[in-house]
Amino acid sequence: MKVKVSRKASFNAAHRLYRPDWSFEKNEAVFGKCNNPKFHGHNYELIVSVHGEIDPETGYVMDMKVLKDLIKAHVEDAFDHKNLNLDVPEFKDTNPTAENIAVAIWKRLRPHVNSASDLEIVLYETPRNFVTFSG
Amino acid sequence: MKVKVSRKASFNAAHRLYRPDWSFEKNEAVFGKCNNPKFHGHNYELIVSVHGEIDPETGYVMDMKVLKDLIKAHVEDAFDHKNLNLDVPEFKDTNPTAENIAVAIWKRLRPHVNSASDLEIVLYETPRNFVTFSG
Amino acid sequence: MKVKVSRKASFNAAHRLYRPDWSFEKNEAVFGKCNNPKFHGHNYELIVSVHGEIDPETGYVMDMKVLKDLIKAHVEDAFDHKNLNLDVPEFKDTNPTAENIAVAIWKRLRPHVNSASDLEIVLYETPRNFVTFSG
Amino acid sequence: MKVKVSRKASFNAAHRLYRPDWSFEKNEAVFGKCNNPKFHGHNYELIVSVHGEIDPETGYVMDMKVLKDLIKAHVEDAFDHKNLNLDVPEFKDTNPTAENIAVAIWKRLRPHVNSASDLEIVLYETPRNFVTFSG
Amino acid sequence: MKVKVSRKASFNAAHRLYRPDWSFEKNEAVFGKCNNPKFHGHNYELIVSVHGEIDPETGYVMDMKVLKDLIKAHVEDAFDHKNLNLDVPEFKDTNPTAENIAVAIWKRLRPHVNSASDLEIVLYETPRNFVTFSG
Amino acid sequence: MKVKVSRKASFNAAHRLYRPDWSFEKNEAVFGKCNNPKFHGHNYELIVSVHGEIDPETGYVMDMKVLKDLIKAHVEDAFDHKNLNLDVPEFKDTNPTAENIAVAIWKRLRPHVNSASDLEIVLYETPRNFVTFSG
Repeated sequence: MKVKVSRKASFNAAHRLYRPDWSFEKNEAVFGKCNNPKFHGHNYELIVSVHGEIDPETGYVMDMKVLKDLIKAHVEDAFDHKNLNLDVPEFKDTNPTAENIAVAIWKRLRPHVNSASDLEIVLYETPRNFVTFSG
Repeated sequence: MKVKVSRKASFNAAHRLYRPDWSFEKNEAVFGKCNNPKFHGHNYELIVSVHGEIDPETGYVMDMKVLKDLIKAHVEDAFDHKNLNLDVPEFKDTNPTAENIAVAIWKRLRPHVNSASDLEIVLYETPRNFVTFSG
Repeated sequence: MKVKVSRKASFNAAHRLYRPDWSFEKNEAVFGKCNNPKFHGHNYELIVSVHGEIDPETGYVMDMKVLKDLIKAHVEDAFDHKNLNLDVPEFKDTNPTAENIAVAIWKRLRPHVNSASDLEIVLYETPRNFVTFSG
Repeated sequence: MKVKVSRKASFNAAHRLYRPDWSFEKNEAVFGKCNNPKFHGHNYELIVSVHGEIDPETGYVMDMKVLKDLIKAHVEDAFDHKNLNLDVPEFKDTNPTAENIAVAIWKRLRPHVNSASDLEIVLYETPRNFVTFSG
Repeated sequence: MKVKVSRKASFNAAHRLYRPDWSFEKNEAVFGKCNNPKFHGHNYELIVSVHGEIDPETGYVMDMKVLKDLIKAHVEDAFDHKNLNLDVPEFKDTNPTAENIAVAIWKRLRPHVNSASDLEIVLYETPRNFVTFSG
Repeated sequence: MKVKVSRKASFNAAHRLYRPDWSFEKNEAVFGKCNNPKFHGHNYELIVSVHGEIDPETGYVMDMKVLKDLIKAHVEDAFDHKNLNLDVPEFKDTNPTAENIAVAIWKRLRPHVNSASDLEIVLYETPRNFVTFSG
């Protein structure tokens, strides 16, 4: 009996979208106001889902408290109240778009989730823009 | 032309997570504060989705009024303002985790939905914890 | 690396559900109060999702600004503050149910989205009723 | 001990903003796309609040079930799935702006609420536009 | 310069509405399904607001972290995953209606908030029913 | 007949809370992780309300389109995708706390709203933290 269990979390961070190997003009043309060199920021809302078998002994696919603690240790502590470009190693040379942040979160959590279960990341950059990555 | 139609509903219930064949200490270790013997409770939010062909005559996959009434008759009337452990037969010997409640709802509704359509249950135990079951 | 990017939008419209080839009584029986001949209306909330490869150069599957502008040009300008039955050609002879509106939106947007990507439409007719169409 | 108790409800309706004594051009200039002669519509979300003394016997300011039934009888049954301009007497000669609808709802409910309590109406025309009227 | 600062929190609890000095029949007539002797429950959502002067040195009316910790210590630790009737002293002889719970929360927090500031409690029992108490 | 009309808007910005005349240690002690020198950020959600008389000719307190455009011109264009500390003059020497941002928004909008009407600003820094300023 496979069920998907989902936990919401959030973090607040600054970022800037640009490529250092492009001119300022090209960055403006492609990334618009997201290219502000002094940064802007978001309240990122995150939904982490684990799709796996219900443990018949507990009735849990995964203890939500454990999932909450994993998100805290591997995502919130690293990303919350940070500048994604300057403070988070994944974005030293990679643009912190919502797509790339979702992939980075998936890679951070994947080793800590039962390998027989699927992992899905939904990341809201704003209440109107969000992305989904399932590996 | 297959479309998934979804209807939100809700019910308020008390429950307790524990196994009677375990010691109180083991129940505390596994279920934490969810093991309060005097019960706690939730506003469960429910999304029932039916994925099937659009009826070319009406433009409906399924009349939402009919789906609403099915949820009322088979879920809300049985679960709302109830103690899941004590009042609902499925949880006499099964732990009322969100996972098991979603499966129980799916089993209650499955016989009443067109067998050619897929049925999916999303159940929010809190605004931050939810589960999805598709059979 | 495939990611699904999603953009929310909205439009407000009037509509009526009925078939002109049915008697008023049959329309009442099937469509109930949605058959009010003077129309009623909704704030439709829309989520348009594009599932495709991340462009390694930009980190985008698709520029959200471009997606926002496509929705504005092909959906909002055509449907917002309109009477769906009388103002929108797709519903001249087709009942504007949520199912049929979602299919119509999908057909309007499909030619403008990268053909290697999948397109999904979620349409909320009310906060409790919504439909999903993926082609 | 005064407490304010609030109940949310909703109704879906069509409307048009215009003055019959103005030219079409003046109506367009003032009311813009809200002046579509074929109507448009909204999911109106409503919050009705009653501010009064807690009854020491029950612990209620007012039974929420009674408030829910009052809203159903005096607002939802009259406004839901209706054309506000054509079906609701208050808007025969009055423009159904959110402001005027809130006042009309207040006037309909005021006689049915304890005269020692205050009554407040919040009406959302869209998730981004709303009005508040307290008499 | 007076500003109102507000913090949202939540707790999950079981309760039952009834008066032990009334017959079961009278309790049923007044409290309906809320009178289930085996209890039901809710996810209570709470908004605590403090209205006071901005401290010109910090720009804060009150540090939100301090307010969050006060709510945790005086409300969440006492109410979360509890049976309000059986576990919380205020409701030993008082009906745990939303009104009475809001007053109890206000009384618990009032001594810990700057006496020159006003304190307001908003308590959602369900997403559609909520109460407000300001002392 | 006085009604309060409210319009929601939003902007995304980076900021840092600190006082340049304090040591880094004192800033850490008072502002915690909000003192990250590389900035963090938020999706600020804004509700602007104008409380005034209904114009009997139009049925409007104020045309929502006009209010929307005022918020765009005086708040969104100045704050969206900006670094509040570095890009917005009000915060050159003032800490951009939610309280101070709400006051700054009120001061920017006050001259553009009918002086006979009251103006209120609600500003969400996160979905759980918000402030209200009424002048």
